[in-house]
Amino acid sequence: MNPDTAHLLDIESRSDAFHRRVLDLAAELREDAVPWRQARAGRLLVNLFYEPSTRTRVSFEIAALRLGMRVVNIAAADSSVKKGETLMDTFNTLQAMSPDVVVVRHPDNGALAPLAEAAWPGVHLVNAGDGSRAHPTQALLDALTMRSHFERLDALRVVVAGDLHHSRVTRSGVALMKKLGVGEIRLCAPSGLEAGPRVSEGTRGFDSLDEALDGADVVMMLRIQHERLAGMAVPDGESYHRRWGLTTERLKRAAPGCIVMHPGPMNRGVEIASEVADGPQSVILEQVANGVLTRMAVIHTLLDD
Amino acid sequence: MNPDTAHLLDIESRSDAFHRRVLDLAAELREDAVPWRQARAGRLLVNLFYEPSTRTRVSFEIAALRLGMRVVNIAAADSSVKKGETLMDTFNTLQAMSPDVVVVRHPDNGALAPLAEAAWPGVHLVNAGDGSRAHPTQALLDALTMRSHFERLDALRVVVAGDLHHSRVTRSGVALMKKLGVGEIRLCAPSGLEAGPRVSEGTRGFDSLDEALDGADVVMMLRIQHERLAGMAVPDGESYHRRWGLTTERLKRAAPGCIVMHPGPMNRGVEIASEVADGPQSVILEQVANGVLTRMAVIHTLLDD
Amino acid sequence: MNPDTAHLLDIESRSDAFHRRVLDLAAELREDAVPWRQARAGRLLVNLFYEPSTRTRVSFEIAALRLGMRVVNIAAADSSVKKGETLMDTFNTLQAMSPDVVVVRHPDNGALAPLAEAAWPGVHLVNAGDGSRAHPTQALLDALTMRSHFERLDALRVVVAGDLHHSRVTRSGVALMKKLGVGEIRLCAPSGLEAGPRVSEGTRGFDSLDEALDGADVVMMLRIQHERLAGMAVPDGESYHRRWGLTTERLKRAAPGCIVMHPGPMNRGVEIASEVADGPQSVILEQVANGVLTRMAVIHTLLDD
Repeated sequence: MNPDTAHLLDIESRSDAFHRRVLDLAAELREDAVPWRQARAGRLLVNLFYEPSTRTRVSFEIAALRLGMRVVNIAAADSSVKKGETLMDTFNTLQAMSPDVVVVRHPDNGALAPLAEAAWPGVHLVNAGDGSRAHPTQALLDALTMRSHFERLDALRVVVAGDLHHSRVTRSGVALMKKLGVGEIRLCAPSGLEAGPRVSEGTRGFDSLDEALDGADVVMMLRIQHERLAGMAVPDGESYHRRWGLTTERLKRAAPGCIVMHPGPMNRGVEIASEVADGPQSVILEQVANGVLTRMAVIHTLLDD
Repeated sequence: MNPDTAHLLDIESRSDAFHRRVLDLAAELREDAVPWRQARAGRLLVNLFYEPSTRTRVSFEIAALRLGMRVVNIAAADSSVKKGETLMDTFNTLQAMSPDVVVVRHPDNGALAPLAEAAWPGVHLVNAGDGSRAHPTQALLDALTMRSHFERLDALRVVVAGDLHHSRVTRSGVALMKKLGVGEIRLCAPSGLEAGPRVSEGTRGFDSLDEALDGADVVMMLRIQHERLAGMAVPDGESYHRRWGLTTERLKRAAPGCIVMHPGPMNRGVEIASEVADGPQSVILEQVANGVLTRMAVIHTLLDD
Repeated sequence: MNPDTAHLLDIESRSDAFHRRVLDLAAELREDAVPWRQARAGRLLVNLFYEPSTRTRVSFEIAALRLGMRVVNIAAADSSVKKGETLMDTFNTLQAMSPDVVVVRHPDNGALAPLAEAAWPGVHLVNAGDGSRAHPTQALLDALTMRSHFERLDALRVVVAGDLHHSRVTRSGVALMKKLGVGEIRLCAPSGLEAGPRVSEGTRGFDSLDEALDGADVVMMLRIQHERLAGMAVPDGESYHRRWGLTTERLKRAAPGCIVMHPGPMNRGVEIASEVADGPQSVILEQVANGVLTRMAVIHTLLDD
């Protein structure tokens, strides 16, 4: 097995061809998933989550089940970590049980890199979010959502707004949009929460959400991650909403067919108004549905390599 | 899909025909469940539990597995709720992943009503207990247990005793017994723990367990739910047992063939003596077995509608 | 069903023939497990864990899934125990749901004995560790590992070293090695952590790891279980390592082909040096792989009886 094609650690380390193949397969699954029901029967996926998550864990679990796979869930709380075991020992123990796919979420940036180096042939790693570094399947499901609403990505103006500094969604999302040739990527963040230089490169920066929205085709609102903001001077929810929240009024500045995305979970009344979240331009639940399809496609594609 | 027949939120909102159909199918499954092993293969059930529970969660899980379904479990502890997500957003996220059945347990009365209104075609909600309001599958499994011991329900004298005030089992159970035409329903509770007027209507009230038991055919003892009694003047376990506990001595007042039921988990030596719980008249473990059959029948029937 | 052959509670209560049959089947599964994929399809295994564990729970789960079984997991945290239910009532509730195998881990010595007496026909109990008493599947997987490296066990010198006092692994392991006729069993423990007289009988005791290692063919290092040592005067990790840790230097005293085992999770730098754990003589991950095979064999064999 080629170590470069065995895993999905981040968007950057995989080829454009891989991403396009995943997106094409996910679109095909959306049309008709029935023929794929047993496509990976007998295979085993392990969810190894060191951070709590419902949506991502369940999305991977359902994706695997829909391919006929078996799924084993491990939450950090019941893990041997409590007995002082290292992540590498836990991973090695797991891979000795011959899983086909190991999905890992971990609070530390780059936590999966040493695991990928240690992975045995036939064991495929998928990053379900490491620290603020990468969340590649989120980027892929977002791209799938955009592709289903717009024929061509090269004419799109996409706004990504909110806490870009702590967001693995931003990093992976922007990386993939660049690879797929999205027309214009606009990043908009409160002071102190801007994306780093590598993410910002080749994008347009805004410090006003109103201006960023002008004529936009897609707006992705990010959650304010309170748990990552300890000690920073962040305004309370209401003040944040007044300046950085996506409201119906604000959304009028965007192009008429502009779609509204959010990776969830949402803080209603903070980064997004309920009216917008539930409004006709919201594709937030489509994102969730596309998440399952995208993860099916990722798993299936990795198992082919 | 007709919204009225898509879900099982409580006993009252479903027809007598529905309940009889479930009970008949459950009885059929008890005779021979083998032909049903793959009856719902490929379908997905999600257990969404906001209160801890072993028996109910596992009962639904095993029921679904015995129909060939896939099961995904979500405990509130690892839920996005921690990140401030509303129940409705969590539910919408889940239903965007195309489950067939979502089983919800929640501490708030009526928590499922808005979910049922928001449910998409093909998504079936089952109430696994909401606050002190309803627990319809418990009522159905109890009725199944009574029907398997007595040919006619209209001649039965059934005692329900204990904390009736906080008991969703009581509300759903009494509602179903009324619908099925149980001869006489006797409610017996310590002062301050009586059932409300709507539940009591059409039943006979007792403030002495001895009197309530006279000639009874069925006695359902309820658990004292310490976690719901904060601040109330409730006697300690031993005093409670002396006055309200079902003992061998007390049980002699009932009809000779009287069966003893308890929804579990039991507080032995409080509401029920061990000798009775494990005695020849106890059908408590039959209730558990009937629970799996009843939930298979409920799931199967909802998926038909 | 013969109660003596329905369960696996400990090594001592099962015959040599049973153990040999399990080991032979596990070895066969290692050659080719594919024909066994559906061998127990439709059967149900319940993991009932009153102590946290990743490796053992997951090992049983994967073993059962590889035989085509369904698996339901119960962790003490979400159990009715919180509502005051006894272990026996929890077990009886579970067995009323007709599982085929119930795997129990419990902190109390002998916790499974009353459950085995109460078990109904068709319900098979497997001990996944009770207190410091028994862990029979660990003993079997260790024996499988030794058998795969050495043709004859009667010529082997096996060292078991570390906290032998609190170790269920030691008790079950030594009991099985005696049954299988291992040549020489050497026990080596710090003062105060020695094995009891029943375990020690027929073994050789050492109070120096260096001496115990002389010419050894197998060395099993045990974890220092901090959680069981409250109040005892145990040296800190570094001091422990200097005197009782298995280092490359020390390992040179053993026979050239000596294999190094550890039941995991490891405390690297305490009872074992990383260099040894990851070195060419380590078979620690083979043990993990053998764990799945052994549990498949145990489950399959119990279901035959």
